[in-house]
Amino acid sequence: MSGTGAEGSKQEYAADISSIREAYARIKPFVHRTPVVTSGTLDGLSGGRNLYFKCECFQKGGAFKFRGACNAVLSLDDTQAARGVVTHSSGNHAAALALAAKLRGIPAYIVIPKNAPTCKVNNVIRYGGEIVWSEVTLQSRESIADKVLAETGAVLIHPYNDRRIMSGQGTITLELLEQVSQIDTIVAPISGGGLISGIALAAKAIKPEIRILAAEPRGANDAAQSKAVGGIVTLSETNTIADGLRAFLGECTWPVVRDLVDDVIVVDDQEIVEAMRLCYEILKVAVEPSGAIGLAAVLSESFQNNPAWKDCKHIGIVLSGGNVELGMVWNSYKI
Amino acid sequence: MSGTGAEGSKQEYAADISSIREAYARIKPFVHRTPVVTSGTLDGLSGGRNLYFKCECFQKGGAFKFRGACNAVLSLDDTQAARGVVTHSSGNHAAALALAAKLRGIPAYIVIPKNAPTCKVNNVIRYGGEIVWSEVTLQSRESIADKVLAETGAVLIHPYNDRRIMSGQGTITLELLEQVSQIDTIVAPISGGGLISGIALAAKAIKPEIRILAAEPRGANDAAQSKAVGGIVTLSETNTIADGLRAFLGECTWPVVRDLVDDVIVVDDQEIVEAMRLCYEILKVAVEPSGAIGLAAVLSESFQNNPAWKDCKHIGIVLSGGNVELGMVWNSYKI
Repeated sequence: MSGTGAEGSKQEYAADISSIREAYARIKPFVHRTPVVTSGTLDGLSGGRNLYFKCECFQKGGAFKFRGACNAVLSLDDTQAARGVVTHSSGNHAAALALAAKLRGIPAYIVIPKNAPTCKVNNVIRYGGEIVWSEVTLQSRESIADKVLAETGAVLIHPYNDRRIMSGQGTITLELLEQVSQIDTIVAPISGGGLISGIALAAKAIKPEIRILAAEPRGANDAAQSKAVGGIVTLSETNTIADGLRAFLGECTWPVVRDLVDDVIVVDDQEIVEAMRLCYEILKVAVEPSGAIGLAAVLSESFQNNPAWKDCKHIGIVLSGGNVELGMVWNSYKI
Repeated sequence: MSGTGAEGSKQEYAADISSIREAYARIKPFVHRTPVVTSGTLDGLSGGRNLYFKCECFQKGGAFKFRGACNAVLSLDDTQAARGVVTHSSGNHAAALALAAKLRGIPAYIVIPKNAPTCKVNNVIRYGGEIVWSEVTLQSRESIADKVLAETGAVLIHPYNDRRIMSGQGTITLELLEQVSQIDTIVAPISGGGLISGIALAAKAIKPEIRILAAEPRGANDAAQSKAVGGIVTLSETNTIADGLRAFLGECTWPVVRDLVDDVIVVDDQEIVEAMRLCYEILKVAVEPSGAIGLAAVLSESFQNNPAWKDCKHIGIVLSGGNVELGMVWNSYKI
């Protein structure tokens, strides 16, 4: 799966440019080719760089997650598919999987903890997912999911630690580099690593000199710690407004993050909230906190003052999702 | 200028498809080709029609106004241009004109009433406009503008009652019909009529069978009244959350509205606020109240129940602008 190559030989990862191109051929008729927007004002704030915002918040289901979920569901053979799919997630992957399953006409069983945000639960309901409630703990979520698997014979689709998911998310790079060929840097959020690993695998294959930077909240900075110590670090607790960025790296995503992600930029929640405000008020794009973190990273002192990133002139920033209630956005200004 | 044709002869208007195409050639290098976004969820809410949202809130300056302002400023000869431009506006036209003047390196004198929204004043400042404060009354605004004109020799650029402005706004149609060729209906806000008349002139020239529908707030429904009585109606006062839609038709825009706008759909402020919420939470696009009114119109009972619009299947909706403070959006939910 990963890390099998001897030094000097070609590293093999869970996904690659071929699986990403295959994914794109599979999902292209069903996903939105999301637009890239720009703003002279934000370019100015970034120190005169050119920022290109890839609006995955406009993706079906309101987040990039539909790319991976769609690829996973369409990859199943008919017998597998007929029994349905399962996941345990309180977030955008759940809604995305429900929508992908609906398109294929198969059931999606979504195990959701009782404390999940209402708007994300509503998305699952809107897309026809069958909700199975669990307690808040990961233990409860996993044991309920196991029970559903046993009863239905459905296929578990992990939110990120999965070749099909990573490949689906990587299709963002294919579109972005077609839309803006001069991009020299891509910045995207990191959580479980499905998004950034797919993006990195495609980008480094197409344009080896490109820089891939991950953005992570300080209250869930396991990826930065993992890079620092050279192995997967998990945290006993996380604390951030970015509810989509609390997961930890998995065995499929970590080797890619280790080798192909050039740096992890850690930002504070205040920086995320300010970036979210800029997205709304300047860019006119509604993003959730996790979706705004790429802009927060580019505007942060640690990015701006790092000589290694001085020549990052054409930066693609993935606005990963927009599923947020307005009241939450407004109230977050008070943090 | 208008209404000169005898019955049966071709009506001449202040602008036409040629002036719109010329405008596009002039402004194309400077304006954003704004994306069109779609949402299956909103299609469902609209009774299964296909809605195509033209995101002019992503235009430079945050609104479609930059198209017209840019065309007007670039149309000036060098001698005229050197003396600068003037307008009295508290809204998006002011910022757009400041930005267009900045691009040409000429002064823009913007007469702004003391009660103008902060975010719109900030936009004028950001783009380098020279603010000249006036009292709130139209009288004060006009007399201050006259004083500036006399002192500077600058050119007055009216926000809508101007061939160059109407032609610039009409370029939206050129892009929209290129982006989505199957459009059979365009819905846009109406205020002074610069936007809808430009859109209608281009659309009916390219695709004569297209329907053009204007959307107007009930508290400023002068255009609906004008259409009903067959002449320009002005109101002694207006009352709506849509601060951009309080102007009245002018002699250049009225004949186009009279002849080429198929209907004016009047909506309540509550419908505007609900449409604004849908834009944020479903479409993930931040719009100001005036910008959301096209969606409000399409979702309204008066549109949905009108048999004349039953076969409007592919509807382009112009999200005209996004200059709004988040707090205002949030507080508006309480109306």
